[in-house]
Amino acid sequence: MKALFYTGNKTFEIQESTPAPLQPGEVRLKVAYCGVCGTDVHIYHGNMDKRVQIPQVIGHEVSAEIAELGEGVTGWQVGDRVAVRPLQPGAEHPSDFGQNHIGKNLKFIGIDTSGGMQQFWNVPAYTLHRLPENLSLKLGALIEPLAVACHDIRLAELRKDEQVVVIGGGPIGMLIALVAQHKGAKVLLSEINGARLELAASLGLATVNPREEDLVTRVEDFTQGAMADVVFEVSGVQAGVDAMTQVPRARGRIVMVAIHAQPKPVDLFRFFWRELKLIGARVYEPEDFDEAIALAASGQLPLEAIITQVAPLAAAQEVFETIDGNPAGLKYLLACQ
Amino acid sequence: MKALFYTGNKTFEIQESTPAPLQPGEVRLKVAYCGVCGTDVHIYHGNMDKRVQIPQVIGHEVSAEIAELGEGVTGWQVGDRVAVRPLQPGAEHPSDFGQNHIGKNLKFIGIDTSGGMQQFWNVPAYTLHRLPENLSLKLGALIEPLAVACHDIRLAELRKDEQVVVIGGGPIGMLIALVAQHKGAKVLLSEINGARLELAASLGLATVNPREEDLVTRVEDFTQGAMADVVFEVSGVQAGVDAMTQVPRARGRIVMVAIHAQPKPVDLFRFFWRELKLIGARVYEPEDFDEAIALAASGQLPLEAIITQVAPLAAAQEVFETIDGNPAGLKYLLACQ
Repeated sequence: MKALFYTGNKTFEIQESTPAPLQPGEVRLKVAYCGVCGTDVHIYHGNMDKRVQIPQVIGHEVSAEIAELGEGVTGWQVGDRVAVRPLQPGAEHPSDFGQNHIGKNLKFIGIDTSGGMQQFWNVPAYTLHRLPENLSLKLGALIEPLAVACHDIRLAELRKDEQVVVIGGGPIGMLIALVAQHKGAKVLLSEINGARLELAASLGLATVNPREEDLVTRVEDFTQGAMADVVFEVSGVQAGVDAMTQVPRARGRIVMVAIHAQPKPVDLFRFFWRELKLIGARVYEPEDFDEAIALAASGQLPLEAIITQVAPLAAAQEVFETIDGNPAGLKYLLACQ
Repeated sequence: MKALFYTGNKTFEIQESTPAPLQPGEVRLKVAYCGVCGTDVHIYHGNMDKRVQIPQVIGHEVSAEIAELGEGVTGWQVGDRVAVRPLQPGAEHPSDFGQNHIGKNLKFIGIDTSGGMQQFWNVPAYTLHRLPENLSLKLGALIEPLAVACHDIRLAELRKDEQVVVIGGGPIGMLIALVAQHKGAKVLLSEINGARLELAASLGLATVNPREEDLVTRVEDFTQGAMADVVFEVSGVQAGVDAMTQVPRARGRIVMVAIHAQPKPVDLFRFFWRELKLIGARVYEPEDFDEAIALAASGQLPLEAIITQVAPLAAAQEVFETIDGNPAGLKYLLACQ
């Protein structure tokens, strides 16, 4: 079979590879599509060379059909269409507080272990979520990032009619904005990229470019002075961290979605002064996948619109280079057969 | 009557003063004791000269007897013993979300208006909370800081048997630790001052000096690896901000009690990685005063022990100078008659 290996130095290589032996409890998937995540781009940039095992197959936003069942796997059949929740919990640590999706010994499948950018992929059967008949395998590859958005919104305890500011309009920020709006929130998306702003507007989202107008003033206008009930910080940059404490109302909630690799100055006084809450949110739990699948299958989210390109696995190198040079793009999928 | 005026330049002066005319809805208090708050020390240092109106009487941790009732005041009698909740809500702003204790137009009585360091003091009747017969006026002056602790603990949603780390053992940190322990939490107080550590230990609190042993290791040992359910950051320094993200368990809550005047580097990655929550908490609401009074009246908290000194109002200058040079002290009260 063909597999895409990250070999270091911003390089991917397609290689002929023999599928790993199927272990008890695993299924072998015939991978349909694998989306490219921001984390995959970090790997491409070499930022995670200490964590991945070069050469390694990466990728974790997968839709697939089951090709073979390992020993002891029940409840699934060859041919079933699935999405993969790429979390492999390890031994529970006392400080995990039972939250095994963020446990100390968690392995992230496709980063800490072999990933989905190959024709066939073995994963534990417990990672699978069934895709309904009316949901295409292409959109099935969006379930993983959509589940991130569902998790972030669930942890925000977002209620209907609340006013939301999403800071950062990449794939996750865009999905959060779309899901929040679908749930009845009034959403303003803050983004600096013109093409992303245009796309967001075409999808019915209110938008603001904080380099062109003052974000705080815009939020005041947008909310008629009430300011944001919930802010999602998805930008990962200092300007987003500065903005996140400026736009909430008293007792507003800020969800920390972005990965800030280094400590950044935060206006802690605002947390005190306005009794703000910061809520860290990472990956997803099974119910978030269930919700993402139901939402996608409902056809009520414009998910097709956020797919920038579908490319064959063999074109992966070019796709990663395109992403590097094209911050206007959103979601790139690799077709793995 | 005698009143203590802050006149700038680290100076207080006792002056003969005529009580202000009593307005409708106000009561005139015969002030018994007024505690010295950290904020008063900030004023003394000149850090708030733009906010106060020099010369100004300051002070807001007051116990008193009612000396006179203004027009329209009902439910109170001359001689009633009271504590003052020194908040004067202004017009509600849309972004206040009904939280008038932290409203945009709130005035803090004793900072933004004349305070309690005088023999007689006029305050709106709605600021009063009745002190029960068995609670001394001396302990009554501790109700305000105790209400801060009750508010912080309430916003933390602290539950019995939870494991708590309090970072900073000044008056507020000490009160938080004592109240949390009284409510059935298992509390570890982190403080660098030897005298405060000794006092805390004598009051039955577990303590750690993070300059002498590694705080994270100590919290691991203290919690048998489970780490803290709740952390209170009361230190106001960078070391406290660094520690606050290191000692919680997954989904642990961090309450931001301290005033960090300038933005400080915060490990936002830890919020994401462990799904931590940061909860800003400021002053109090009426129910926190009610709880503080009930707790103090129960006699179950060692409140006497945190009173370092009771001095006459005329000795205020010396008291502020002592506080400046004596970080080991906790609560200083001025006797105002």
